[in-house]
Amino acid sequence: MPELRKDPIIGRWVIIATERAKRPSDYKRGEDSGYGIGLCALCQGNETMTPPEVMAYRDAGTAPNTPGWWTRVVPNKFPALQREGNIDRTGVGMYDMMNGIGIHEVIIDSPDHHGIIANLPEKQVEELLWTYRDRIMDLSRDPRAKYILIFKNHGKPAGASLEHPHSQLIATPIVPKRVMEEIEGSRDYYHFKERCVFCDIVRQELADQTRLVAENDSFIAIEVFASRFPFETWIMPKKHTCNFHEIERKEVMDLAAILKSVMHKMYVLLEDPPFNYILHTAPVNNECRHFFHWHIEIMPRLTQVAGFEWGTGMYINPTIPEEAAKSLREVEN
Amino acid sequence: MPELRKDPIIGRWVIIATERAKRPSDYKRGEDSGYGIGLCALCQGNETMTPPEVMAYRDAGTAPNTPGWWTRVVPNKFPALQREGNIDRTGVGMYDMMNGIGIHEVIIDSPDHHGIIANLPEKQVEELLWTYRDRIMDLSRDPRAKYILIFKNHGKPAGASLEHPHSQLIATPIVPKRVMEEIEGSRDYYHFKERCVFCDIVRQELADQTRLVAENDSFIAIEVFASRFPFETWIMPKKHTCNFHEIERKEVMDLAAILKSVMHKMYVLLEDPPFNYILHTAPVNNECRHFFHWHIEIMPRLTQVAGFEWGTGMYINPTIPEEAAKSLREVEN
Repeated sequence: MPELRKDPIIGRWVIIATERAKRPSDYKRGEDSGYGIGLCALCQGNETMTPPEVMAYRDAGTAPNTPGWWTRVVPNKFPALQREGNIDRTGVGMYDMMNGIGIHEVIIDSPDHHGIIANLPEKQVEELLWTYRDRIMDLSRDPRAKYILIFKNHGKPAGASLEHPHSQLIATPIVPKRVMEEIEGSRDYYHFKERCVFCDIVRQELADQTRLVAENDSFIAIEVFASRFPFETWIMPKKHTCNFHEIERKEVMDLAAILKSVMHKMYVLLEDPPFNYILHTAPVNNECRHFFHWHIEIMPRLTQVAGFEWGTGMYINPTIPEEAAKSLREVEN
Repeated sequence: MPELRKDPIIGRWVIIATERAKRPSDYKRGEDSGYGIGLCALCQGNETMTPPEVMAYRDAGTAPNTPGWWTRVVPNKFPALQREGNIDRTGVGMYDMMNGIGIHEVIIDSPDHHGIIANLPEKQVEELLWTYRDRIMDLSRDPRAKYILIFKNHGKPAGASLEHPHSQLIATPIVPKRVMEEIEGSRDYYHFKERCVFCDIVRQELADQTRLVAENDSFIAIEVFASRFPFETWIMPKKHTCNFHEIERKEVMDLAAILKSVMHKMYVLLEDPPFNYILHTAPVNNECRHFFHWHIEIMPRLTQVAGFEWGTGMYINPTIPEEAAKSLREVEN
């Protein structure tokens, strides 16, 4: 059973992933030769190589765990959290812990082993976004799920262990620290200003234009004013909404278009960089409707995070956001 | 002039390092071939390759910036913050920023190009610790310095850009977020319990023994109960002290011994892993004497930080701290 353990000083929870337990000798270093050349478990035709699917968008009449799908969701074979059981909060001397209960799924972006979002048809990106939405809607019904995180790791330096483009979902039994910081920060701003801080950012970036990368009816894509990483880019809905899963049909089309556009610009400008993206949506039973505003954070992994960053929580970003925005704007889609 | 920019949502400051500014094409990837084979600017005899030294422990009668030193401190050639100027806090629309004023120094651990702490004589480690202390004492007098961070990056994956073992010092014009979290967390604990949380950790770990890696008269080294990373190890003084620079002579000797011992155990067990260590001491004008407790956090860089960690602030650690402690204890010094 994985364990959730709480830092007694700053209150951060960590997952001690007993199911993935590694011995010292497992941390071999040296050349990483890529993804291997075996059969890909995420490709069409290899459905039996994964745990049985949780859901799929598939052709009418095709059976689960057979070809015919265009997006497919399966449990993670090596989950960081375990699906079954009770949370059982306990103390260990002065420390606090609970069972590592939660859900860890792999969302296969498309049947195409090389189908990265930069190059997928917009329609397929829409399907992927609908898949995200369906999984969030479904898992929100589990009373143990306090937060549902959807994210993508692309490229080995960004932590992807499989080459076939995929996203991940982790449902956690607590609201994570980083999410709470955004909730609390935007609540404080709302109390002070009686406005949503994210809406204010949207307005300022649209007026200012210097950090704007792309825009359509429903969304903006911007370089972040205080960006931690070179080319850190956020996609934000223009309309105030706290929950991603309340997205409307026209908005899904606009989101697919702007996400693909940004991913394509990065692909061209930075030569298929490793990156992470993270969907920041409200916690499951949120009371943050007025001040939280969902968005996607995209972070190319171009710089090392080292002692200074770990010691301070500050970041050193060697690329000026306004220049990054200009470079990205200039890439044609 | 570097800029400090503040995130308007969670209040995190970042450094936009204009002096190190990189264009998109500078982020070339692919094989990293190591440290190059040119002359080492940190080696004895090459003193003119660095900016003029700020201080050195050197043989009587030898001139600054010539051989004869055993530890040497020089300004960073590509500083993240700039030494001269005023902080000048300003607003940019809804955003906040200030000039990137601060100090960024390189502390050369020893004249030996291959002299890592795991293998240096204890006496030399003591000299390095005294050098840390002297720099903190000296820079604490600058009213612009609100925090002085000393840290070490070892190995390319941990962000070291030079092979010659060295430490770094950055003095910042704000108290960084990560430091504030420890201050606030330990203050809350103190208000609740009327005890220092770090002292409680020392007591519990000494009683429990399962996470203990090493111990001497003045210090313990432990695997952290809720450790973010495999083999994350903290060295903590047994005596409650908030400021590292109040360390006594006997304590310097004991710290050198336990630091070298831990570094040597990691070097053997994990085959010279890349790592960061960070000295967590109190802010310059601290009011946290009763509840903050200085310590050193050592983090081998064995796992990738990816989308889950960036999205949640939680970490997935695949090595059980108690097993890590056992493995480290078993390595003989």
